[in-house]
Amino acid sequence: MNVVVAQSGGPTAVINASLLGVYRAARQWPQVDIVFGSLNGIEGILNDRLVNLNEQLDTDEQQTLLRQTPSAALRSCRYKLPAVEKDPAVYETIRATLEKHDIGAFFYIGGNDSMDTVDKLSTYFASVGSPICVMGVPKTIDNDLCLMDHTPGYGSAAKFVATAMWEMIRDCTVYELDSVLIVEIMGRDTGWLTAAAALPRLFGCDAPHLVYLPEVDFSAEQFLEDLREAQKKSRTVIVAVSEGVELEGLDDFQSGKVDTFGHKYLSGIGKCLEELVRDRIGCKVRSVELNILQRCAAHIASETDLEEAEQLGAVAVQAAAVGETGQVSAIVSRGDGYTPLYDIVSVREVANKVKYVPRQWINEAGNDVLPEALNYIQPLIMGEPVVLTENGLARHFIIKE
Amino acid sequence: MNVVVAQSGGPTAVINASLLGVYRAARQWPQVDIVFGSLNGIEGILNDRLVNLNEQLDTDEQQTLLRQTPSAALRSCRYKLPAVEKDPAVYETIRATLEKHDIGAFFYIGGNDSMDTVDKLSTYFASVGSPICVMGVPKTIDNDLCLMDHTPGYGSAAKFVATAMWEMIRDCTVYELDSVLIVEIMGRDTGWLTAAAALPRLFGCDAPHLVYLPEVDFSAEQFLEDLREAQKKSRTVIVAVSEGVELEGLDDFQSGKVDTFGHKYLSGIGKCLEELVRDRIGCKVRSVELNILQRCAAHIASETDLEEAEQLGAVAVQAAAVGETGQVSAIVSRGDGYTPLYDIVSVREVANKVKYVPRQWINEAGNDVLPEALNYIQPLIMGEPVVLTENGLARHFIIKE
Repeated sequence: MNVVVAQSGGPTAVINASLLGVYRAARQWPQVDIVFGSLNGIEGILNDRLVNLNEQLDTDEQQTLLRQTPSAALRSCRYKLPAVEKDPAVYETIRATLEKHDIGAFFYIGGNDSMDTVDKLSTYFASVGSPICVMGVPKTIDNDLCLMDHTPGYGSAAKFVATAMWEMIRDCTVYELDSVLIVEIMGRDTGWLTAAAALPRLFGCDAPHLVYLPEVDFSAEQFLEDLREAQKKSRTVIVAVSEGVELEGLDDFQSGKVDTFGHKYLSGIGKCLEELVRDRIGCKVRSVELNILQRCAAHIASETDLEEAEQLGAVAVQAAAVGETGQVSAIVSRGDGYTPLYDIVSVREVANKVKYVPRQWINEAGNDVLPEALNYIQPLIMGEPVVLTENGLARHFIIKE
Repeated sequence: MNVVVAQSGGPTAVINASLLGVYRAARQWPQVDIVFGSLNGIEGILNDRLVNLNEQLDTDEQQTLLRQTPSAALRSCRYKLPAVEKDPAVYETIRATLEKHDIGAFFYIGGNDSMDTVDKLSTYFASVGSPICVMGVPKTIDNDLCLMDHTPGYGSAAKFVATAMWEMIRDCTVYELDSVLIVEIMGRDTGWLTAAAALPRLFGCDAPHLVYLPEVDFSAEQFLEDLREAQKKSRTVIVAVSEGVELEGLDDFQSGKVDTFGHKYLSGIGKCLEELVRDRIGCKVRSVELNILQRCAAHIASETDLEEAEQLGAVAVQAAAVGETGQVSAIVSRGDGYTPLYDIVSVREVANKVKYVPRQWINEAGNDVLPEALNYIQPLIMGEPVVLTENGLARHFIIKE
């Protein structure tokens, strides 16, 4: 018997650590001969583009390089599986490819949308009496999957955001003049990553002075009032704002395109607030969009996150080995002193649902996060991996077709 | 006798390593009692805001923290010293403060504009028969100071740019669709830092596919033609462009404010090209502005750069100890196998002049850099410093007033 693994959705710094976790655990599974990788997520199964990972991950060095390479080594897709009633042929094609390669289990590493695929496929296989297991392995920098203490990918993204914020605080506080720095951070619907921008507080630092999460309503006038208040205490005011924060009445600044999954592509709240401050307050102002580095900055990955991502790959394989399907591996809670507790949970309870930052972790005024949030995030960014370098840069694993 | 050191201009990741180099060498200078730090550059001397660094850099731990802290621990200024004929009182004030504190030498760590201050002040002190030495210590991520092989700050900025580009290449090549990524990199007049974006070529990588430096004229039509050509070979095309590249006829996109030193604040070429690609080519396109992290990302600093920055501080002090003034420490050339050669050079030959990327390091079409450029940059990004951390973040040195 063989197994296949694929990656989907937006990249993270540790999605390849989960791939490594699946690979290593599958090689320990006595019934398994070949671990296949499907290129471009589920599309690789639809198009029969599988690579034999046994050949490419044979050595310790190859495995180490895979672990330290950001983004998806097997590449990704944004393909949304149609409902089986609408397009049964797609399901038949997937089944045919898997049976052709004697696949007993399919592991899908991805976020919310990929979990929807795991749910649909596992339900389909059960309905047609196929023994193929379908298991999810979570990943998302957004940290918005339900039933989980946190998701792999988040810790590393949070470490990058906190590090960047901590360094930019140093950068922006050197001049004797009134200035505002606005830092726009990823997070369409939830403010988990933006909350990480407040981690410099753990050093007793006042900055960032204002933190806006999409969990709370936002208004331009209240923002200006908050800013003027903050300027009374600090000549440099630093603002962290989630890309998901929407400015009512200023839609022209923000694009409203809709992607395959019905999400809005949000961009520009930082630039938008920059213009607002320039117009209405008139001091020096700059906006910084941390952009895609948030999800791919493996050079500042959290070792904790890498270890957990790898372990979650293994947990999914071990569950499949005892016949589980339609489940996703998860860190369901944390023990005292921070001990991640692993389990599997029903993918249906995870797919298409969103976990928000608790309102009680945000201050009453809705312009800052409370120590509870920082205490939650801090253990997730701990540790620095040892990295193999060449020419002063990290070496990367590149898949061969 | 005492000495004073100050920092000026835009931050870098290693300007504090130079401060440490000045401090350590000055403490070795038998005649020196106190090493003062002037807060906010030359303004701290004008306003008599000096701090006793002996008290704050007493321990190895304090010194280690200073070295790993980005930006200017003594803060900065953008103050431009007027010509002595125009405002002799300013010079008298500076002299009075220095004499009050028994200062025998003033060390100014900064870029082109700070070197102008060193030149004017040293000339003034000589003209009035004052024995106070004024020495420059170079720093600029722009790498544009004349008479130097390279400048400290550049290597770390180049390492960040190359690392970010290398990771973003992984991020952007996972989907099966035509897309363009445009990365805007700092450099008002010169393309040194943008050239570093091409370092992933050392791994045999095709990306970035197009590299535009301000040393070469740029036209929107030629850019679109270059891009269409590149798209024939790669579905994902990655473009590195210097902020200093100007798009003729599209000035409305770019702000034209002028700062104290007569430089244009340039921003927006990346966003401008993004709009152009969306309008004229129509594929998925994204622009990323690396922004201020380029100059403050100490978490990915080059150890080579840190060591050189520290040594340049020491060289300036050692020169002052033998009576030099109006000079700046410099890495004037490199020996075989990359050995930095230190010396001092006349600050007048450095101030207000600009060193450009040689035209012969840029391809004939003006849309890429040649291996000569990569061979020049690569040794400067080598090595990773050991960093003291707490809570998963680097600890920083914060000056006490």
